[in-house]
Parts: sequence; structure tokens; C-alpha cells
Amino acid sequence: MENFNFYSPTEFVFGKGRAAEAGHFVKKYGGSKVLIHYGGGSAVRSGLIDTVKKSLDDAGVAFCELGGVKPNPRDTLVYKGIDMCREEGVDFILAVGGGSVIDSSKAIAIGVPYEGDFWDFYSGKRIEKALPVATVLTIAAAGSEGSGDSVITKEDGMLKRGAGSDHLRPKFSIMDPSLTQTLPAYQTACGATDIMAHVFERYFTNTTEVEITDRLCEAVLITMIKETPRVIAAPDNYQARANIMWAGTVAHTNLCGVGREQDWNSHGIEHELSGLYDVAHGAGLAVIMPAWMEFVHDHNVMRFCQMATRVFGCQMNYEDPEATALEGIRRFRTFLRSIGMPINFEELGAKEEDIPTLVEKFGVGEGTTGGFMKLTAADIAAIYKIAAHASL
Amino acid sequence: MENFNFYSPTEFVFGKGRAAEAGHFVKKYGGSKVLIHYGGGSAVRSGLIDTVKKSLDDAGVAFCELGGVKPNPRDTLVYKGIDMCREEGVDFILAVGGGSVIDSSKAIAIGVPYEGDFWDFYSGKRIEKALPVATVLTIAAAGSEGSGDSVITKEDGMLKRGAGSDHLRPKFSIMDPSLTQTLPAYQTACGATDIMAHVFERYFTNTTEVEITDRLCEAVLITMIKETPRVIAAPDNYQARANIMWAGTVAHTNLCGVGREQDWNSHGIEHELSGLYDVAHGAGLAVIMPAWMEFVHDHNVMRFCQMATRVFGCQMNYEDPEATALEGIRRFRTFLRSIGMPINFEELGAKEEDIPTLVEKFGVGEGTTGGFMKLTAADIAAIYKIAAHASL
Repeated sequence: MENFNFYSPTEFVFGKGRAAEAGHFVKKYGGSKVLIHYGGGSAVRSGLIDTVKKSLDDAGVAFCELGGVKPNPRDTLVYKGIDMCREEGVDFILAVGGGSVIDSSKAIAIGVPYEGDFWDFYSGKRIEKALPVATVLTIAAAGSEGSGDSVITKEDGMLKRGAGSDHLRPKFSIMDPSLTQTLPAYQTACGATDIMAHVFERYFTNTTEVEITDRLCEAVLITMIKETPRVIAAPDNYQARANIMWAGTVAHTNLCGVGREQDWNSHGIEHELSGLYDVAHGAGLAVIMPAWMEFVHDHNVMRFCQMATRVFGCQMNYEDPEATALEGIRRFRTFLRSIGMPINFEELGAKEEDIPTLVEKFGVGEGTTGGFMKLTAADIAAIYKIAAHASL
Repeated sequence: MENFNFYSPTEFVFGKGRAAEAGHFVKKYGGSKVLIHYGGGSAVRSGLIDTVKKSLDDAGVAFCELGGVKPNPRDTLVYKGIDMCREEGVDFILAVGGGSVIDSSKAIAIGVPYEGDFWDFYSGKRIEKALPVATVLTIAAAGSEGSGDSVITKEDGMLKRGAGSDHLRPKFSIMDPSLTQTLPAYQTACGATDIMAHVFERYFTNTTEVEITDRLCEAVLITMIKETPRVIAAPDNYQARANIMWAGTVAHTNLCGVGREQDWNSHGIEHELSGLYDVAHGAGLAVIMPAWMEFVHDHNVMRFCQMATRVFGCQMNYEDPEATALEGIRRFRTFLRSIGMPINFEELGAKEEDIPTLVEKFGVGEGTTGGFMKLTAADIAAIYKIAAHASL
């Protein structure tokens, strides 16, 4: 196990009907003028925004609002949000939505107290301060409600880049699973895939003897494998929604990643796909992650056997461990297909002829990208190629 | 799953050599005059107290010190600590030690800003404020480094009582597994037992459909079953020590308990034992917890089958589920014996004739105590009786 710091100070306010407590918690964490930031019309139509506004009114907290966040949230709206916050004297950002809304809120929160271009922080600059951010979560997926991370897409060139800091960890996150009961199956499955990917990125490591973290990773994965098909079959299953929602947070506070080297290449490789085609991040991951696994599995066959047996319930083949490793990956892809996810380029809406462009945008050049197994540009192209043609 | 709040704001600073960062973190969290609170001579002899003092000096933070905390920490030293803090103008308590030192520190932290008797908070009064507390942990056991709980023994009558509040959650906890490498096997095993008990108290619940929390509980338990025998066999095994230390924290931040009714009767039943005989809490739990399991197992046989199969690797006996449930409990007791724990009154140093006194002190009277299965005074007596005579 490697030395680490773990810090997850967010207060999680979990359960049915909790959105009505938004005002109380904004006040508790020192907000006096709030920007309510949200996406499309569903948060408005469902009455959620009204619930939040009433709650802020009741707590005597002033607010303004900015909707319109799209999936793969854009820098253009972030600039608009920063200007609005400065004009209105906003001191607290309340994201009402999913990962895109939260990530856009975090970008605004960094930008307001910074004189330069907020994009600097998505180009590697260290984050020193930010307005406080909190969330009312409406989809289990990104884990942004408990993480210090944010991913924004630069509209000019559709460049998708991340920033991270403990300053971006939400003060509180209200998580009402019933808000997710109306989500379409496809979006639900994309979220579930993202959650599992957040764990796998941490699970595949070269650090040995981190049993506790391995077992915590497996706990989340096993839960997702049990609960996801239940919500696909019955979208209004509150209990299954609740388990998935909390699993999504646990997957990404970094509890599942401490004390070990992590990978994150699948996320990087996927980001170029959703950047170029504007497809859902989770759907892109469903195509990329098993392809990445196939490509890297012989870097450590035993670790893939561990996944196969502990997570996917395979019997260990002691005479042919590699067969067990590959069977685990096959079961993962079969699971993804069973919840309605694409498993190859065609199903995703990507094109094989774009692979050179994707590799170019990834930008590894003549070097390698680190993680579980170091990858060259040729390796990344090979992974895209496997992903392009994958089948069950 | 029930509605819940989860809040664990402690910054965990984990790994070899981290105690030298104590001064940095005290400063980060606003301390200017620190009480260093510790136990016996080992923290002094090992040089740990000197490391901490040097680190505070380097950071320009003033300090005073108070040693002498005993296992099952006493109210008498707490009063002394409160007086000292007031005289010296202390604004930050740094616990250097294990659960007893941390719990004593938390009690001092509540007492300093309170005009009345601090024991009020251990008699049910709500905690509204406390001085900030932080820890340098030297034993994996109580989980107090990440919890908002504290247990103190009133010397007059050896009455052991708890208090809890988010105000008591440490600002930071420095956790260096190498500090635990010199611990005697018995103390190590007592700590491991306490860690497992913290999970079991949350695992046995009447709340259904909390798969994610169940799996997280099992992750910690499986880790403990793997790693504890390794440190008993080789006390200087850093990796096993590290896994146990982090598992001990995860076991008690309440991550393993959210969204569900919890039990805690075993802890209550044990507290009377360690209160009366001044035995180690973990050793008392090794005697009480399997006895409690035997007494309550038919309240929900399937839950004990889940423990038996998922945690202790039993094969499910579908023709006789109760046999599986009992086999799981048998394996737990066998495990405890294998790491050197007592399993009955004689081995613990308790006396069967004291059972009426123990039940009387527990104080359930004509009523019942809640949890997984409601227990009357007669039930508690029956559990002590099973514990008195247990064998493998």
C-alpha cells in the first residue's frame, strides 16, 4: 500500500424528499446569494427547481438561476455563468442535476474568483480557491457529487479536459433516489456503466497488497451487477435506485482508489470519443473499457482472474488462468449489452476511419501514457480497433 | 434503505513517516495552542511524542501536554485535562495514541467550552460545540480517529458511557501503520476484534435492500479475516498492518452503517464487562459477540447464512439453512481463538456469579433494548450465560 491522503468532507443528505432541505443546508454552509445551475427542462417540469427555490426562500437565501447545461458541458456556458455570478454577487453555487451540471458548476466556482481564463485550470493550472459548490443530484453516474473533479468540453475543437482539487468537493449533496425513477433506461444504463468504470480505473493497479481497497471496489461492482438490471426492468424500483445512487458516490470519492497507483486510460480514450461524436460518456465507456481490458489483460492475468471470480462469479480455471481472465471480460461485455449499452463503434455511432484522428487528439505523441500498463499511440489505436469490431 | 446523512469530514493522512506532518496539519486546521494528550510511556519512549513536538515547533505552534490516559479512559483525567486547557488557553486537542486517548481527548474538547459538568454529555445531553480534535493514531481498533463517538468510564462505580456528535469528528488523523508494528499480539488481536465488531453491529439489521452497505461491511470483514492472522504471525508485516489500520477506520466512519437500523447490543453488553473487570474492550467483545449471535440467530436465519457464506466462506446448506448459520458463528469463534482471543468468561477473567450485577448495571429494567432483536433483561442474562460457558 502506498502513502495517501483521503479527504471527503461533503455532507451527504440521502433519501426521499430531501430536496426540500436545500435552503437549510445552503445556510448551514454559509451561502447568502446562490446561483441555481441546471440543465434542460426536466428539472423545471418535474417541479424540482420550484422545490429548491421555495426551500431557499423559506431559509431567507437569495438566488438567481442559469439553465441550459448540456451533456459534455461546454466552456461557453461556464463563461456566461461566471459573468452572471460576478454581476449578481453570487457566493454559493447550487447544481441541480447530474454530472454535467455539477461539473459546469464547479468550473464556474473556480472561474468567479480568478482574474484569468478559467480554462487555465483545465490546462493544468493548480486550483487555489473556488466558491463553495453544493448539489441536488438527479442521476447516479458521474460521482461528481462527492468528488473534487470536473470535466468540461471546449466548444472550439470539442476538446474535453478535466480539473481537480479538494476545493471542488461539494459542501453538501442532496441525493434523492426517487428523482431518478423517471430516467430513461438508456441514460440509467449509461450512468451505471460510468459508475463501474470509476471503480475499474482504480481496480487495475500495479500496487500490491491493498486488500481493503480491492474488496471495497468489488463491493461496489457486485452491487451494480445486482441492482442495475433491476432498474432496467422496473425503472421505479426505489430500493434498487437507492443502492445504485449511493454506490455511484462511493465509487468516486476515491475511497476505492486510495493507497494505490490508478489507471484512468479508459476514461482518457473514451473522452476523445464523446468529444468527437458528442455521445454519452457511459456509452463510450461501455465500448472502450472491455476493449482496454482485452488489450492489457496479459499485463497481469491474475488480477483479471480476481475480477472474473470475485466480481463476475466465474469459477477459476487453474489449468488455464487466462481463460478465466478472458471469461471475466466476456461477462462484463455481456452484462453491458444486457442493460442496453452499445459494445462497438457501429452501435455507438463512431467510425473506424476516425481512429487516427482520435489517437491524434488523445495526444500521447511519441511517448506513453501511464497507469496499469503504459500505452503508446499504437496501443491506443489498437484499443480503438478492438472496440470498433467488438461482438459477444 | 432508510434516509440518512453521511458526514465524514476528517482528513486522513495515511502512511509511513507522516507523524512529522502533525504541525503542518494543526496549523492548516487553525490550532495555535495545542494540548498533546497521550497514554503511558510507549509514545514517549518510541520517540513519537518528540517527533510530534518537533513538528509543532517547526510550524510555530505552541503546546502543553498531558499523559496518563488508561485503557477504558477515566473521567478523573478528563477533568484534569479540561482545567489544564482553560489555564493554558488551549484551542486545539491533539490525541497521540489509540481509542482511549482519542476518546479522552474528545471528552476534554467538549468540556472546555461548557460551563457545567462534561459528564452531562455522557448522560444524554446534546453536544453543541467542542474544541477541534485531531489524532496521531498508534493502534488500529476503536475507529475513534474517524468517528464522532467517545466512550468514558466514570471511576466512581466504573460506569462506562458514550457520547457522540459530528462536532467530535477529528479534523485530521495521521495514521502510520509502522507505529503499530511493535504492538503485542494480544493488543493487536483485541483491536482486530473491535474492528470486526463495529461492522457486525451494523451488519445485523432489520432494514432490507441495503446491498451496497452489506457488501461494504463484508469487504471490511473479509479483509480482517485475511490480514489479522498475518500480523499475529509476523507483527512487523507493514502491508498487513496498513490494511488493518485503514479497515479499522472504514469500519467506523459509519460508511458501513448508513441507510439501515443498527444493533449495538453486543457493545452495550460488553461495556459492562470491561467496566466491571477493567478487561480490554476487544477481548470482552470476543466473548460476547458470538454468544449474542447464537442467541439471536433465529431472528433471521438467512442473514446469518449470508454472513456464513459471504464472510466465512461456508457452503450454503439449502436443506438446513440453520446449520449454515450456526457454522458461520462457529467459524467466527474459531477465528477469534486462532488470533489469541478469549472465548468464555474464564479465559476473560469474568465470573458467572456476577451475571446479575452485569445485567443490573446494563439497566434495561422491565423494558427492552432495541436493535436487530429486542432484548429483555432475561435475554441479556442468557447471552452472558452462553458467553460464560462457550467453547469450540
